[in-house]
Amino acid sequence: MSGGIRVCFANPGTTELPIVGAFETVPGIKSILCLFEGVAAGAADGYGRMTERPAMTLLHLGPGLANGLAYLHNARRARSPLLNVIGEHATWHRKADPPLAMDIESLAHTVSGWVRTNHSVKALAHDTAEGIAATLSGQVSTLIVPHDNQLAAVEDQTIRGVRSVFDPVDDRAIGRAVNCLKDRDATALIVGGRALRQHGLQAAARIRAATGCDLLTETLPGYVERGLGLPQVTRIPYFPEAAVSVLSRYEAVVLAGAKEPVTFFGYEGIRSHLLREDQEIVHLCGLRGDVVEALEHLADGLRAREEAAVVKDLIRPNLPEGCLTPEKVGLTLAALQPENAIIVDEGLTTSLGDDHLSAHLPRHAFMTIAGGAIGYGMPCASGASVACPDRPVITLQADGSALYTVQALWTQAREALNITTLICANESYRILQVEMARTGVSLLGPHSLALTELRPPRIDWVKVAQGFGVPATTVSRAEELADELHRALEEPGPHLIEMRL
Amino acid sequence: MSGGIRVCFANPGTTELPIVGAFETVPGIKSILCLFEGVAAGAADGYGRMTERPAMTLLHLGPGLANGLAYLHNARRARSPLLNVIGEHATWHRKADPPLAMDIESLAHTVSGWVRTNHSVKALAHDTAEGIAATLSGQVSTLIVPHDNQLAAVEDQTIRGVRSVFDPVDDRAIGRAVNCLKDRDATALIVGGRALRQHGLQAAARIRAATGCDLLTETLPGYVERGLGLPQVTRIPYFPEAAVSVLSRYEAVVLAGAKEPVTFFGYEGIRSHLLREDQEIVHLCGLRGDVVEALEHLADGLRAREEAAVVKDLIRPNLPEGCLTPEKVGLTLAALQPENAIIVDEGLTTSLGDDHLSAHLPRHAFMTIAGGAIGYGMPCASGASVACPDRPVITLQADGSALYTVQALWTQAREALNITTLICANESYRILQVEMARTGVSLLGPHSLALTELRPPRIDWVKVAQGFGVPATTVSRAEELADELHRALEEPGPHLIEMRL
Repeated sequence: MSGGIRVCFANPGTTELPIVGAFETVPGIKSILCLFEGVAAGAADGYGRMTERPAMTLLHLGPGLANGLAYLHNARRARSPLLNVIGEHATWHRKADPPLAMDIESLAHTVSGWVRTNHSVKALAHDTAEGIAATLSGQVSTLIVPHDNQLAAVEDQTIRGVRSVFDPVDDRAIGRAVNCLKDRDATALIVGGRALRQHGLQAAARIRAATGCDLLTETLPGYVERGLGLPQVTRIPYFPEAAVSVLSRYEAVVLAGAKEPVTFFGYEGIRSHLLREDQEIVHLCGLRGDVVEALEHLADGLRAREEAAVVKDLIRPNLPEGCLTPEKVGLTLAALQPENAIIVDEGLTTSLGDDHLSAHLPRHAFMTIAGGAIGYGMPCASGASVACPDRPVITLQADGSALYTVQALWTQAREALNITTLICANESYRILQVEMARTGVSLLGPHSLALTELRPPRIDWVKVAQGFGVPATTVSRAEELADELHRALEEPGPHLIEMRL
Repeated sequence: MSGGIRVCFANPGTTELPIVGAFETVPGIKSILCLFEGVAAGAADGYGRMTERPAMTLLHLGPGLANGLAYLHNARRARSPLLNVIGEHATWHRKADPPLAMDIESLAHTVSGWVRTNHSVKALAHDTAEGIAATLSGQVSTLIVPHDNQLAAVEDQTIRGVRSVFDPVDDRAIGRAVNCLKDRDATALIVGGRALRQHGLQAAARIRAATGCDLLTETLPGYVERGLGLPQVTRIPYFPEAAVSVLSRYEAVVLAGAKEPVTFFGYEGIRSHLLREDQEIVHLCGLRGDVVEALEHLADGLRAREEAAVVKDLIRPNLPEGCLTPEKVGLTLAALQPENAIIVDEGLTTSLGDDHLSAHLPRHAFMTIAGGAIGYGMPCASGASVACPDRPVITLQADGSALYTVQALWTQAREALNITTLICANESYRILQVEMARTGVSLLGPHSLALTELRPPRIDWVKVAQGFGVPATTVSRAEELADELHRALEEPGPHLIEMRL
């Protein structure tokens, strides 16, 4: 067994116990308990984003998978490799429709690029290998294993032949991109997926140096490497007016591992697709292609020099002072962010999203919510830290979203993960209040307030975190935040800082 | 609007804001915010069980529905009436496949008896009325409303004609049941669904008085009325050996609103169906029939007298002393349980399930997990208390399960609900350890322990509860539990008592 799987984020039940038993005899897999399947799924997503290799989840029947679905949806949109293993009732028991029976396959199809119910013990190792291989192009696989097949399978299950194949590079598409970037005046290269890691970004930087194109990425990329030695990549803004304003200046756009940009929600009077019909769009490679190789071919085709246009100057802002604001949170973080940090951003309305500021910081990984299912932050940080235990993880975490998967704090404490969680305690679903104001749906009457205000009662984040075993403090001034963040980063293990905004 | 809906348990997003806006102008609907959709769904389930009328949930797109699914699954198994309203992207925006897009209908079908995507503004009131009507026979309805249709629909949406029709009583089935109960020596009447409320139970008690049959119900009924003035109904045991032992003594069984009993999981060497093929089974009425009317016809057909065999003597156990055990928890609760209480049981291995003890207590409602998706307890209690604010609610809550939906405590505090939560802090998924020992899958090696032990770190339930705004204490002796339970029941609003077992 194992097939390259090193970590299993799990919350098993009775129908998964033979797999848990098998772990006792299979070397090399670490079991990590999550107190809720949403945490397990989100952690596996974070692990996959960091390593480009799948973690496994082990989830209990339909309800266990259902509880993980929202975070598997984010993993799908982030193109994370991730293998779900779900127990199913014994084949002969399923037709009795026992209480826990659900349509597991239908649930799995909503988030997975690959779904299979194992139908024979002999096929189990092969099914698992195929499931793992399917993850490697950046998708979620779900393998459903009936209880009786698990019981019989404990003996010989060596997984062989896990490999992934990208679609071949399309030379004609590269030729079209070369011509487009040469011939047109105002151009942008929109990079996504694996292109947002070092090699892809360096190729993109060569292309920019050769052509003067702008480098953009999706509003909510799953994973971006940023900082010194890499080019600055600008995220397309969230709100559609600003996004249209950025994109409208280009005659032509080359998409490299990114989808054509669309608005996050449908707003009356604004088109779904942010590019106009008179703007040329060249697809450099599909989502299943090797975008890094394609970008390197494109750079070569443009005769771009090896020296790329990357950021070389470290620029840190000064530490701000006074009452905390979203801006000061961003500045404090930028002033203190350590080398090689992993930044998990679910700050939403508190998140600055200042791509220029972060481009001049030490090299770091940056992750966003990708699929928009809130509560991804603390689980994703947990999985990222399991993947990279020596790197400091900082989670910028909106309070309303944090409450979706608050149980993640316990796994952070149990595994002594080096994670500092900054809770943006504005005590509301602020983004909804902003959207309400935008669309004029309502003037915030009593129902609107009841459904968007997170007080009363006020959540006491210090108590909640301590209750789950995570040391915590509360701050309301920028100086206090700097002190507490500095201390948290110095001490091993998880910390939580409630920021009263 | 409203259509008889009085309460909406909600966690809306941008695509549901026009509905939130509409609440401002529609009288009679109370909006209750839940910090996670699992809590909203579980609360709506509890409300439906108490009132036999649907509460509404308002959930955000696919991820919001996904987060509620496990608790909607329990609602389905409990046959709760429940109307989900889900926002969808605007009809013209959906095809752009924006980040939050999911296959909402496929998700909905896994738990709903009725699913519809609204396709025109004109049909919205009619769709809603049909969805509500479909809930009244005890099922979950899911109505998906695109954002643009919500925006257009705010004006005239009076919902008319909500009515429910049961399948007609089947006189031949009644005749077969009459003959069976008269002719056979050892018989049982297994009642379920609406038959577990006062009128059904009184008819069942008449039948028992006339025939000497035993009264049984499913292992995990959604809702049972118990106590003085009602017959004792015995739940079929959870573990299959005990269940077979109870059921094997009958020559014949009449099913009234209950399904044929099956084991909870498939265990090797034990059949799924607990009744043998040589045992006669008579189906008195289907799950969509009027089981109360059918039981009354059956009682009349048996010429049963009006006086039923019900429990008349109040018997309270003495308060136990010493270190807490699961038994002492049950005895303390039985000794102190107030009149007209609502008992939400998710105690699992701490739950006594002593049907004899509870039959001699004052009249009370009793609810169980029904579909087996853990974490139902605190949300269900919240919805039950919203439905019946003047009745004391006591939640007997396993700690591992409580952690699935711990956010429910905040809604209990916000709404000042009269709920006392007794956390059974045995700090493990004890049921899994029991199942492991039963099946001999493993000798509890390090992985098995890592995935079934809830410490380290120990959850500090007092801090967690206080963090969410609920007063809390911890006890380890039976005397302390009695004192704290007494105090909690005297004071208004929610309380949590951590029981160190």
